[in-house]
Amino acid sequence: MPRRYDRDSAEFARVLAFSDGLFAIAMTLLIVSVTVPAISDHDSISEMADGLNDRLPDFTSFFISFAVIGRYWLAHHRFISLLRAIDQPLINLNLIYLAFIAFLPFPTALLGEYFENPLSIVIYAVSVGVVSGWEVVLFRRAYRDGLFAKPISPEVYRFGVTASLLPVLFFAISIPIAFVSTTVAAASWFLVIPAGVWIERRAPEGTQELLG
Amino acid sequence: MPRRYDRDSAEFARVLAFSDGLFAIAMTLLIVSVTVPAISDHDSISEMADGLNDRLPDFTSFFISFAVIGRYWLAHHRFISLLRAIDQPLINLNLIYLAFIAFLPFPTALLGEYFENPLSIVIYAVSVGVVSGWEVVLFRRAYRDGLFAKPISPEVYRFGVTASLLPVLFFAISIPIAFVSTTVAAASWFLVIPAGVWIERRAPEGTQELLG
Amino acid sequence: MPRRYDRDSAEFARVLAFSDGLFAIAMTLLIVSVTVPAISDHDSISEMADGLNDRLPDFTSFFISFAVIGRYWLAHHRFISLLRAIDQPLINLNLIYLAFIAFLPFPTALLGEYFENPLSIVIYAVSVGVVSGWEVVLFRRAYRDGLFAKPISPEVYRFGVTASLLPVLFFAISIPIAFVSTTVAAASWFLVIPAGVWIERRAPEGTQELLG
Amino acid sequence: MPRRYDRDSAEFARVLAFSDGLFAIAMTLLIVSVTVPAISDHDSISEMADGLNDRLPDFTSFFISFAVIGRYWLAHHRFISLLRAIDQPLINLNLIYLAFIAFLPFPTALLGEYFENPLSIVIYAVSVGVVSGWEVVLFRRAYRDGLFAKPISPEVYRFGVTASLLPVLFFAISIPIAFVSTTVAAASWFLVIPAGVWIERRAPEGTQELLG
Repeated sequence: MPRRYDRDSAEFARVLAFSDGLFAIAMTLLIVSVTVPAISDHDSISEMADGLNDRLPDFTSFFISFAVIGRYWLAHHRFISLLRAIDQPLINLNLIYLAFIAFLPFPTALLGEYFENPLSIVIYAVSVGVVSGWEVVLFRRAYRDGLFAKPISPEVYRFGVTASLLPVLFFAISIPIAFVSTTVAAASWFLVIPAGVWIERRAPEGTQELLG
Repeated sequence: MPRRYDRDSAEFARVLAFSDGLFAIAMTLLIVSVTVPAISDHDSISEMADGLNDRLPDFTSFFISFAVIGRYWLAHHRFISLLRAIDQPLINLNLIYLAFIAFLPFPTALLGEYFENPLSIVIYAVSVGVVSGWEVVLFRRAYRDGLFAKPISPEVYRFGVTASLLPVLFFAISIPIAFVSTTVAAASWFLVIPAGVWIERRAPEGTQELLG
Repeated sequence: MPRRYDRDSAEFARVLAFSDGLFAIAMTLLIVSVTVPAISDHDSISEMADGLNDRLPDFTSFFISFAVIGRYWLAHHRFISLLRAIDQPLINLNLIYLAFIAFLPFPTALLGEYFENPLSIVIYAVSVGVVSGWEVVLFRRAYRDGLFAKPISPEVYRFGVTASLLPVLFFAISIPIAFVSTTVAAASWFLVIPAGVWIERRAPEGTQELLG
Repeated sequence: MPRRYDRDSAEFARVLAFSDGLFAIAMTLLIVSVTVPAISDHDSISEMADGLNDRLPDFTSFFISFAVIGRYWLAHHRFISLLRAIDQPLINLNLIYLAFIAFLPFPTALLGEYFENPLSIVIYAVSVGVVSGWEVVLFRRAYRDGLFAKPISPEVYRFGVTASLLPVLFFAISIPIAFVSTTVAAASWFLVIPAGVWIERRAPEGTQELLG
């Protein structure tokens, strides 16, 4: 029997505090590297405008990265809210998940600076695909170890896994597309949204109450 | 019905822990980039004094940024203290709020280095204006979703929104002024203080107990 | 009456979480800037030894900074443990205290790199003197607002203030000494330890139970 | 009698929150320094591939560092879970432990970049050896001050110390080996795993329940 920590224990709280700290740092990191532009005439509006214009990819990277990691934080927050306890294997898997999260600022910065380069798209797609795929690993572990607060039927479980794998599929498909057109590849990621709505409609009864 | 988390749940605590972590990082960031001056004669007091003098705008930026973001942290702390629960829409809006907070060190550093440049003033005024404006969005959402611990009358609500929008108004007015004189524009920001006192006097009865 | 938050409220917890996050960042910051030495012959032990030797002041700065800020964290932890509640004025003063803490890595790095320069000693002495002095401000506020868990007699209060001001006195005295000899000035800081033992012996009865 | 804080006190929680914040920062730090490669032809796949290839040691360092510090976080999490209270001496020793943890990204980066250099191996082995050794110091202090939730017999205590010192022994042995072959030295670290299994088999009865 692996060690198990109840929802109201200091140990359960620590896993969340540690995860939240890491998420917060990963989301704030990208702005550190954005330096104030160096301009020769301090009062010149046009020089400043040029300098800021050069920083535009950095700003874009920061806000995209914040949105992407923020979305994963929301999913993590929601997932944990379904649990009544956490056990050692799930803590270990959560640590690996956080390593991928901490890595995300790099591919996002790459994409922000070299959007036209197919390799940027590939590395970004692989990185977020791995994070999304790992969410399924966490979900599976919690299910198998009986950590959910409410019992989850096999149908609801299978639906949860399928719905979580959907983004991974779209990220995988975008990889070969990137070598034809990076714009089409990036655009294909947004198809996750209507696909999510479509699959949500096919959810088995009771999913809403169990998984929200 | 959106998911809702009570004040004593691990999920309510996580939103605060995550917010506090992000605030702490954003407030400490600016000092990272301040490097120790490189001087040729290690014992020379005058060389060291020159080197430190060159760092003055960095120190100023750090303390201003700390004060500005610290003031928003205090407002966030006070706002959350009024709530009995938090729901999914408010969590999402809070995440967007934090993105603006994490961005603040950049416009502050810009202002610290190029105070005479109208564009610095404009970008600073827009950035803090957006944060102050977003406070109103959070306040509105909490009111509409019935998340306040004590019932708030429509009069008190309208007063809260008006009082919160006041700084946004002053930041907006300072933008055209910046192109005439950056000093006058920056000075106009301080008018928020007497204006706040003036509007506070017109608060409907019971505001003090409800909103402090 | 200022807003007051009890020890078991989410608001009390937030002030601590925010303070701890900021302390942790300030203590880890200095190691970020230490880069791996660049050596031409990757296998050369002597080149690597030289490269690491050049990093020695950085390592020293990191560990001194960690020890200094860590000592303040311990004092903060101990101070908060005496309180039954926290109020708005103390939260505001705590924020100012944290600004000084976040600034500390800079004077420490300066001291690590330019130990022989009197100005480094002065800036360091002023910085830590301000932090130590501000501890007295926090202590005073908590006393005046009746926030201590156990009632503190005026004698114990006066003793606490005197004992806390002792390091400030030593830091102040070291400033003129620095212009004669930086080594003597730095050495004089360690006199705080026997002086602390001496004053501890003159503590009024009951101090131990109240202030530890 | 040193000050002691029970498991459900705000003071116990602060030590954990502070530790977790520091761990999270130390684990995320290494990715900050990894800059996006600068390539002249933005669309060129081969140039990008070369640029990313140059970053490989940085990625390796990041993931190794994350794994190493993560493993220590897991050990810290598990150790704290055995305690019913924490006292002042243990808080002080924990602070020293955290200083070594915060330092770890440096030797890891060194190893990632100069794997063939014996000095990299030595510095890495000393650093992790010190952290592992300090775990024993924490364990001893908790045992002597009676902080464990369940009473631990002298046999189980001796076994715990021996098992914890095992990695220190392997790190020490690898130091002279490094001057013959860095690959053999690094490989010898992995012998900790079978040695750990071997010693686990010789554990006195009841160890599993007490130390997990």
